[in-house]
Amino acid sequence: MSPSNNQAEEKWEYEYFNITFPAEYVAHVEINRPEKLNAFIEKMWLNLSLIFNRLSHSPSVRAIVLSGAGDRAFTTGLDVKAASQGLLASPSSGKQQEDVARKANNLRRHILEFQDCITAVEKCEKPVIVVYHGISYGLAVDLGCACDIRLSTTTTTFAVKEVDIGIAADIGTLSRLPKLVSSFSFAKEIALTARPFDSAEALQHGFVSHVLPSKAEAVAKGLQLAGLMAEKSPVAVVGTKELLNYSRDRSVEEGLRYTAIWNMSMVQSSDVGEALLGGLEKRKSVFSKL
Amino acid sequence: MSPSNNQAEEKWEYEYFNITFPAEYVAHVEINRPEKLNAFIEKMWLNLSLIFNRLSHSPSVRAIVLSGAGDRAFTTGLDVKAASQGLLASPSSGKQQEDVARKANNLRRHILEFQDCITAVEKCEKPVIVVYHGISYGLAVDLGCACDIRLSTTTTTFAVKEVDIGIAADIGTLSRLPKLVSSFSFAKEIALTARPFDSAEALQHGFVSHVLPSKAEAVAKGLQLAGLMAEKSPVAVVGTKELLNYSRDRSVEEGLRYTAIWNMSMVQSSDVGEALLGGLEKRKSVFSKL
Amino acid sequence: MSPSNNQAEEKWEYEYFNITFPAEYVAHVEINRPEKLNAFIEKMWLNLSLIFNRLSHSPSVRAIVLSGAGDRAFTTGLDVKAASQGLLASPSSGKQQEDVARKANNLRRHILEFQDCITAVEKCEKPVIVVYHGISYGLAVDLGCACDIRLSTTTTTFAVKEVDIGIAADIGTLSRLPKLVSSFSFAKEIALTARPFDSAEALQHGFVSHVLPSKAEAVAKGLQLAGLMAEKSPVAVVGTKELLNYSRDRSVEEGLRYTAIWNMSMVQSSDVGEALLGGLEKRKSVFSKL
Amino acid sequence: MSPSNNQAEEKWEYEYFNITFPAEYVAHVEINRPEKLNAFIEKMWLNLSLIFNRLSHSPSVRAIVLSGAGDRAFTTGLDVKAASQGLLASPSSGKQQEDVARKANNLRRHILEFQDCITAVEKCEKPVIVVYHGISYGLAVDLGCACDIRLSTTTTTFAVKEVDIGIAADIGTLSRLPKLVSSFSFAKEIALTARPFDSAEALQHGFVSHVLPSKAEAVAKGLQLAGLMAEKSPVAVVGTKELLNYSRDRSVEEGLRYTAIWNMSMVQSSDVGEALLGGLEKRKSVFSKL
Amino acid sequence: MSPSNNQAEEKWEYEYFNITFPAEYVAHVEINRPEKLNAFIEKMWLNLSLIFNRLSHSPSVRAIVLSGAGDRAFTTGLDVKAASQGLLASPSSGKQQEDVARKANNLRRHILEFQDCITAVEKCEKPVIVVYHGISYGLAVDLGCACDIRLSTTTTTFAVKEVDIGIAADIGTLSRLPKLVSSFSFAKEIALTARPFDSAEALQHGFVSHVLPSKAEAVAKGLQLAGLMAEKSPVAVVGTKELLNYSRDRSVEEGLRYTAIWNMSMVQSSDVGEALLGGLEKRKSVFSKL
Amino acid sequence: MSPSNNQAEEKWEYEYFNITFPAEYVAHVEINRPEKLNAFIEKMWLNLSLIFNRLSHSPSVRAIVLSGAGDRAFTTGLDVKAASQGLLASPSSGKQQEDVARKANNLRRHILEFQDCITAVEKCEKPVIVVYHGISYGLAVDLGCACDIRLSTTTTTFAVKEVDIGIAADIGTLSRLPKLVSSFSFAKEIALTARPFDSAEALQHGFVSHVLPSKAEAVAKGLQLAGLMAEKSPVAVVGTKELLNYSRDRSVEEGLRYTAIWNMSMVQSSDVGEALLGGLEKRKSVFSKL
Repeated sequence: MSPSNNQAEEKWEYEYFNITFPAEYVAHVEINRPEKLNAFIEKMWLNLSLIFNRLSHSPSVRAIVLSGAGDRAFTTGLDVKAASQGLLASPSSGKQQEDVARKANNLRRHILEFQDCITAVEKCEKPVIVVYHGISYGLAVDLGCACDIRLSTTTTTFAVKEVDIGIAADIGTLSRLPKLVSSFSFAKEIALTARPFDSAEALQHGFVSHVLPSKAEAVAKGLQLAGLMAEKSPVAVVGTKELLNYSRDRSVEEGLRYTAIWNMSMVQSSDVGEALLGGLEKRKSVFSKL
Repeated sequence: MSPSNNQAEEKWEYEYFNITFPAEYVAHVEINRPEKLNAFIEKMWLNLSLIFNRLSHSPSVRAIVLSGAGDRAFTTGLDVKAASQGLLASPSSGKQQEDVARKANNLRRHILEFQDCITAVEKCEKPVIVVYHGISYGLAVDLGCACDIRLSTTTTTFAVKEVDIGIAADIGTLSRLPKLVSSFSFAKEIALTARPFDSAEALQHGFVSHVLPSKAEAVAKGLQLAGLMAEKSPVAVVGTKELLNYSRDRSVEEGLRYTAIWNMSMVQSSDVGEALLGGLEKRKSVFSKL
Repeated sequence: MSPSNNQAEEKWEYEYFNITFPAEYVAHVEINRPEKLNAFIEKMWLNLSLIFNRLSHSPSVRAIVLSGAGDRAFTTGLDVKAASQGLLASPSSGKQQEDVARKANNLRRHILEFQDCITAVEKCEKPVIVVYHGISYGLAVDLGCACDIRLSTTTTTFAVKEVDIGIAADIGTLSRLPKLVSSFSFAKEIALTARPFDSAEALQHGFVSHVLPSKAEAVAKGLQLAGLMAEKSPVAVVGTKELLNYSRDRSVEEGLRYTAIWNMSMVQSSDVGEALLGGLEKRKSVFSKL
Repeated sequence: MSPSNNQAEEKWEYEYFNITFPAEYVAHVEINRPEKLNAFIEKMWLNLSLIFNRLSHSPSVRAIVLSGAGDRAFTTGLDVKAASQGLLASPSSGKQQEDVARKANNLRRHILEFQDCITAVEKCEKPVIVVYHGISYGLAVDLGCACDIRLSTTTTTFAVKEVDIGIAADIGTLSRLPKLVSSFSFAKEIALTARPFDSAEALQHGFVSHVLPSKAEAVAKGLQLAGLMAEKSPVAVVGTKELLNYSRDRSVEEGLRYTAIWNMSMVQSSDVGEALLGGLEKRKSVFSKL
Repeated sequence: MSPSNNQAEEKWEYEYFNITFPAEYVAHVEINRPEKLNAFIEKMWLNLSLIFNRLSHSPSVRAIVLSGAGDRAFTTGLDVKAASQGLLASPSSGKQQEDVARKANNLRRHILEFQDCITAVEKCEKPVIVVYHGISYGLAVDLGCACDIRLSTTTTTFAVKEVDIGIAADIGTLSRLPKLVSSFSFAKEIALTARPFDSAEALQHGFVSHVLPSKAEAVAKGLQLAGLMAEKSPVAVVGTKELLNYSRDRSVEEGLRYTAIWNMSMVQSSDVGEALLGGLEKRKSVFSKL
Repeated sequence: MSPSNNQAEEKWEYEYFNITFPAEYVAHVEINRPEKLNAFIEKMWLNLSLIFNRLSHSPSVRAIVLSGAGDRAFTTGLDVKAASQGLLASPSSGKQQEDVARKANNLRRHILEFQDCITAVEKCEKPVIVVYHGISYGLAVDLGCACDIRLSTTTTTFAVKEVDIGIAADIGTLSRLPKLVSSFSFAKEIALTARPFDSAEALQHGFVSHVLPSKAEAVAKGLQLAGLMAEKSPVAVVGTKELLNYSRDRSVEEGLRYTAIWNMSMVQSSDVGEALLGGLEKRKSVFSKL
């Protein structure tokens, strides 16, 4: 961690996650439960949400890399015990006396809360680069779809596993994946069959934009991209992420209108002058914190 | 047909279509007018709709393969005679006395009905895999866009032919195709020029997800994928198709909300327990009929 | 220019643009400020809008090719002086006394007007084929996203440059680009880093549908595609563009409904009969002006 | 029935409904199960749908009045037996062995089908005037919300009864009612409490547009309004209903665009000339059948 | 006209319209073709659009009143000759040889242009108060629906006349009216029957918010309301109109989001401090021009 | 507070709010800062949000009444000091060195958070009845628009005050109010002029559904309505609120589809049987907690 980085003085400690600041304005979030192949339990997605909400507003952060601890897996998805004891199993558990509607209402609250935790990554104002490596199943795909840029390694294996446990994926994959990739036929095939696919297919269909030979190189590529973004005006970068996500879900006409309203204040930033001047003077522009 | 398949006892006979059940929970629908290269007349799309509405609710069907009889064509599209005597020609026919508005209203009813017949494939609760082979023109593209997964053979030739007969395609291609493929530039080029394209281009742009060397192999691949889906929980598969199609047309936020409401009942299914148990016991899970 | 082309008799002269009619029903618009690498000043986008509004309604035009004069650049984007004296710089200029809200309202009017000029290309009833060559930065991407078909040459270099001048792109790229290409990861990477990309990447991700060895060949390919469209029924071609663009921004259901209403008049065209007859008689169909 | 009305020669007989043609181009549909206060059983909503689909396309019908047989009730809503044996009771019935998800899927199919039957009244091309009288509970409100104009008598009593039987209304009231009345506070109050309200409140909040002293006078008023519409160009009337309903659910901008596309064919009607000429010549215009 | 009003020095002369500035920051637009009861010909709606576009950006205007010259009519709507020679009549005219599709395309262009002229009033940044008086038929309703506040006199007579000339209204009434009034039943009744209605009904259903005894008093009330608005911060007033119109057409959620983006610049205005200070010091706040 | 109410055992203490449980399943929330006429400071809207989020999930609450402590005001809106020191003043404060874009981003976060606090009332699963009394300005209207049912007293005075402090209202009024009342003309008049209006106008335009002679009677009416709702099946009541709010913002078609998915689980509730049985046995149905 750079000593000049004032994040160093704050505490960034969350159970099951390592958070470091490998370069100025760059954060690295690592899922840290390697002994369980980074499988998720509820505490983890609650913490994930807390972390990204805080990174979103942290003036010392301009770009984020997300990866998993250990070599074997980014994450295998939902933890089996969680799956069989918590959310998924509870409905089919022994409490037959419980009313279907009351169970349904509880499940609704639970699913919406779970979705919100994943959506916190998408709502994070700063760009997030996910580095997939090893096993990347189920929740790995849900989570990565909420990130901005996806990288992987030659040995990454992906799967949309939910149909294999009897459910339609409900934490984001079915809503986000087809908007990210090049072929609805491919997206439906992997979601309906739960078959694994590798980085070659992921690249072919645009799910990832780069495949690297090793996890180390993939993380390095992620950090390099994050570093590139961290050098730009944070006003411009935050606006670009916001406008891209807003427009994804709306007509071009709606996108243009919102963009004009956004920029009527944002182009009043002193960053514009500084960026132009930096270019003119062939020096690196320096932008104040956001 | 599997003798244990209780579809065997029902009659599945429709003019211009062969319907068989080559494996448990798998239906195979074959367009059957090979002497006319499977060109469509009105009776055919009306029957198509009846067939897919019935398959949608049939408890014995969990996945469907759609192909054409004969080697030369999946379908050449609208039958020329139909085109020149029916819908398309009538407006330009001799009845000059007819009022434009009244003709327009009749055409509107006719087009909406025709669209609904094709949309019946999309609305079918169970996934549909189309196997393109040989000539696949006009209506072939409209129809395949309403399917979930698209396969083809090395000798398939596609074309969005409608501008060649003086009309903008109105049975679905223009609304669905660009949402399925990787390049709007490509989609517009083929729609605006009516030029043919082959399987290599179709694969490159994600229109099909697999190209097989022959029709037989493509049908086999289709049946294999259908078989894979038929082994899964039908609750999960039906939900996955529904949520993917719903989300295609709406914002991520709307998709997530609908998903939560859908799953508040669906994850109460006993299939979740059976799927988890099957996985744990390393046996094939067995799911009751939907 | 063909002497039979009655455009010859009208004046098509606009500052900074060359407009020619190299084939029947085909217009070629060339951005013409090569000494400044076709960089845009305000007069240019105002003229662009006037030109495309006029081409949209001109009965003698059925397809349009757009390219840049000179070998070095399609366009380098916004002119530096414009950027530092006009829109972008003014907010950060010395007039500190000016009220933020009043500046914002002026900027809103300015941005909306600028957007409308680019959108004029999308709203043009006739298809537009953009031929990218050389440097194609910033506004080059905004502008090309409003075209229907994109071609480039092996030496074209693209970049979404706006973050490099401290702003989120606001003339269309962020709203249109992700709907045109195969990978949201790629789209976000190039928009968030402003890094250049070449024709190979542009082709891989479907941004362009053909890459040609030279500018001359790319323009020739553009004219050939335009010629192909110009031979078709203009009723069918105009409808196809309209319905593709309408459906891009709406659900399949909305697309189908609008299509039915559109075609309830359009298929009453005599072009349908002429197109069918031409096909039958193996001759080129001749369609009257639109 | 007018002897000149060629509906006389067709059979318009449906169980539980009386259908008459009291004036040229005017149909009167009467719910006919007075001995049960016109309470609805499944056969009735299926027939309702068949009737309105047919009226929609019948060239001899231009406006429709809907009322109930007998003096005591327009309809008391769902029949109690149906409620306790069919849709509503089945989920809470003894079949505890049935899977929640499978029940849910059957219920979904059932509710969608039921909704479609009521929506058939809204989709009917011709305007529908509902005449409420006596008890008008539950389904009476759902059904009336799908009509175009609502009349009632001084003794009509309304109630959105569904919460009293433990469900949120699902056949249309909750989606349509607030778009029809003047106060969301009122709409929520009656839906959340199930309290009855009378014609004075219905008029105050715009649910009905006229209150008449008796059923006979209300039916007469309905027929008078229907007669007025039946004298107009059917092209204009059908278009007006379509555009009003389309615009209700969309932005003004979408409404205007669809309107322009609709009218680009419809104003080509000879009815425009005939209507203008009739006005000029101070005679009743005569329009051919639609 | 106030001599202190610097509009006095500019020329505000448009055929068929009187434009005056009766108070500071208040404009009064009067339709001026009283000898024809202010019936509209094409030149008039083109000028209307030019006027409101200019008022929208004029720093000296903060609120606008719209009325008609003469006592007999606000406007009787489209001019009869225009109706029989121009838009409406042309389709039914003698040129039977013209292609339906080509006519349709011309009509589409024409209707969209006409709609845009009326929408210019809605898009005008400053609030517009329409004062209805006397005959207010057809286009009078279309036009008033695009205004913000509607007043009338006790002798005003309204009618949605379009079905009486064989068309569905296409310049805005059908898209806007039901969003403005309290009863969809009422809105449909007047649109489907073309029957006149008076100010009492207009007030009951919320179409107008005040009815005054005479035209003079109604104009005075309009000017008083305009004067009230003209005293407020123009930043606040322009924002309020924009956000009300934006939200009318979208979900509450979309409205809130756009509002936040709008106000992130607008509340940085010095008007906030001046308004608070004015209140504190019990003096009239003075706001600089927008 | 009823001793049988198990809320008694939990602590419901929040600064500036009194929370009591005057009847079974009924909560009463009272804004409690009467010495400042219940003017809001930031702590209050944060607490408001915490309270309604908790009531939303509390099994002991089925309906809620919201009123203000003291006789003089429901609330006068934003506290003057907050307005001049916090959100609104800060942008125009002395810190001229701060960048417009950075201020804008902070304001965006702040406004969104503030909006979310008010929206918590709308998102609360249980119905909320607001009782307006005395001065009800600014935030009073924003807040009441997020409630389900609005009551007032004969001496209540309302105003949408925001333009008087130089801003367009941004906490909800502009997005919600026009969807709640009967006249867009009225809504715009009060929002654009900030003029006060009384209960008579509020009732006429449907903003409130009942006006009571005194605060005591209005609170009693609120509690009576809440009591009525609290007797119904909570499954039905919660569903009715959800479906009404969902449908308000979407097309009828979308509303119906969501309704079907909602009810496919909810009508499986045992409440349906209990409600029917209670009706049959002429006894009060008893429903278990949600």
